[in-house]
Amino acid sequence: MTELKNDRLLRALRRQPVDVTPVWMMRQAGRYLPEYRATRKKAGNFLTLCKTPELACEVTLQPVERFPLDAAILFSDILTVPDAMGLGLYFEAGEGPRFRRPVRSAADVDRLGVPDPEQDLGYVMDTVRLIRRELDGRVPLIGFAGSPWTLATYMVEGGGSRDFRRIKGMLYEQPALLHRLLDVVTEAVTAYLDAQIAAGAQALMLFDTWGGVLSHRAFPEFSLQYMARIARGLHRGTGESRIPLILFTKGGGQWLEAMADAGADALGLDWTTSLGEARRRVGDRVALQGNLDPAALYASPETIRRLVAEVLSDYGKGNGHVFNLGHGIHPQIPPEHAAVMIDAVHELSRPYHG
Amino acid sequence: MTELKNDRLLRALRRQPVDVTPVWMMRQAGRYLPEYRATRKKAGNFLTLCKTPELACEVTLQPVERFPLDAAILFSDILTVPDAMGLGLYFEAGEGPRFRRPVRSAADVDRLGVPDPEQDLGYVMDTVRLIRRELDGRVPLIGFAGSPWTLATYMVEGGGSRDFRRIKGMLYEQPALLHRLLDVVTEAVTAYLDAQIAAGAQALMLFDTWGGVLSHRAFPEFSLQYMARIARGLHRGTGESRIPLILFTKGGGQWLEAMADAGADALGLDWTTSLGEARRRVGDRVALQGNLDPAALYASPETIRRLVAEVLSDYGKGNGHVFNLGHGIHPQIPPEHAAVMIDAVHELSRPYHG
Repeated sequence: MTELKNDRLLRALRRQPVDVTPVWMMRQAGRYLPEYRATRKKAGNFLTLCKTPELACEVTLQPVERFPLDAAILFSDILTVPDAMGLGLYFEAGEGPRFRRPVRSAADVDRLGVPDPEQDLGYVMDTVRLIRRELDGRVPLIGFAGSPWTLATYMVEGGGSRDFRRIKGMLYEQPALLHRLLDVVTEAVTAYLDAQIAAGAQALMLFDTWGGVLSHRAFPEFSLQYMARIARGLHRGTGESRIPLILFTKGGGQWLEAMADAGADALGLDWTTSLGEARRRVGDRVALQGNLDPAALYASPETIRRLVAEVLSDYGKGNGHVFNLGHGIHPQIPPEHAAVMIDAVHELSRPYHG
Repeated sequence: MTELKNDRLLRALRRQPVDVTPVWMMRQAGRYLPEYRATRKKAGNFLTLCKTPELACEVTLQPVERFPLDAAILFSDILTVPDAMGLGLYFEAGEGPRFRRPVRSAADVDRLGVPDPEQDLGYVMDTVRLIRRELDGRVPLIGFAGSPWTLATYMVEGGGSRDFRRIKGMLYEQPALLHRLLDVVTEAVTAYLDAQIAAGAQALMLFDTWGGVLSHRAFPEFSLQYMARIARGLHRGTGESRIPLILFTKGGGQWLEAMADAGADALGLDWTTSLGEARRRVGDRVALQGNLDPAALYASPETIRRLVAEVLSDYGKGNGHVFNLGHGIHPQIPPEHAAVMIDAVHELSRPYHG
């Protein structure tokens, strides 16, 4: 493999010194970019875009070509895993994701198998290999998956939800059944991420998008426990070549102490938690990633620079910070505003290093 | 006025001893009750239900007649205040609230006046007076309003929002304009709640439903500051007859220390924060209200009793706890499950008192 020319992200995740704070954006390959919308149109629909390695690679590289980002992230969808488990993923126009065969009963759980990543999710692995070739060492490639809890919410609800009625019904009334479901999803996610590593992913992130809807008692039992199992079960190597792992629970700011002990290298933060306070709470156990409010990018360039400066100052001097938005970039953001943010991170973070 | 026969709520909010923990439910007058759905049908639409004192009084009393609740809460909508400010509230079938004239510019803000509660929101004050008469001292009546920030989100977005794009654009780019808007909304809410007190409300609650979408920097500046101004500006009386005030920021669990200093008597908590930990953090500055996950009521009676016991044990012995859900009761909950919860609170809390 080609040598990595920009290793800021990997160094920051390992809490090693860097020249400037590395930056990438959740959903950086997305609808706010006209070139993404063109490729998406060419693909015809979202799922075809995910399942065609050439197109998925194309959109993965678009933001890296446009901006001086410090990482690429695999373009895919967290729901490809339950799709490969036989649930039948489809997208209703303007409706978000749906499953043809949601998981509702013990029999439904029993039917689930662990997909073979190269066989059943081969298009993702082909995409990872293609991106690595096309990136040619410019920046590292981040692979990812949804957390078991987050995937289970879609699998049980049959799609997105506002009240999480079915999965919480299962959690409170049939916790053993939910644990069986989470067990098999955890196995599937572990195999899937291991295959991404084998295919060339250089860092990994677990998206726990819906962990924050759990109670303070349920979160450790039904989400964190399974993320920790993945963190410890993955074949991430050792020493300098060990693949770092980032955990991100949206709305999980209250639980950082417990999350810092889950075996990951970094925690993602949304914008409701101060990076400085988070740093005091987790000590030097993990690096931190975040956490500009994505809505800040609606503001003018001058304001964006001021808000970037605030986030950098929240974290303060020293190693272990990866700059990011606190959630995915909104589709209506002008790309030039993202550019302002990225440049501001590199420029304004210099005094915090070296 | 008739003497209050059940003063558990008021005593708990003042952190005085009670025999058992008082309990009420956010949205207790709501769609999960068949008698509510019947009155709603009779009214024809939601806004007529809010604006007809006899009907609003009827649905306010329904849960109090069905369950041994320790409080009634005025049936109304937080958006009646911006409606009275001239924004033209309407409800699109299945779409949630909308405003005909949203606030988008400085000129829009300048046009806003502070409504005269008895004149412009007289139907609410008539409802409060009617409920007090019909309640006849059985339990206290809680009045309420939306927080200025929460009302402003609807006023600027023109309805509900998922990304709060317009109001956050204003927050980051035109903070002075947003402060002017929040100023006038704060004045309106203060006058509105003062009028509710004059009409007979015996406790008050401020619903900061959307405070939790703010960044850790923006929350104190754009939401908490204005709630504190209301807490201190209201004419709540003194001593034993002072009207207690509850603040509730959904998703505000990280900010309890600051909220405890805002001048309210109690803080509402959603289910992501442990009551025990919250109590240690706020000390004896405020009482706490909450915090069962509303989805827990999908479970069986046995499970509901166990989950109630957990919440009571989280708070522990001593004064200052009002039991509630962590958010409004879901429309699909069987009323019998609410009954199980209410009975369990009274029965299982006895050992924690006296």
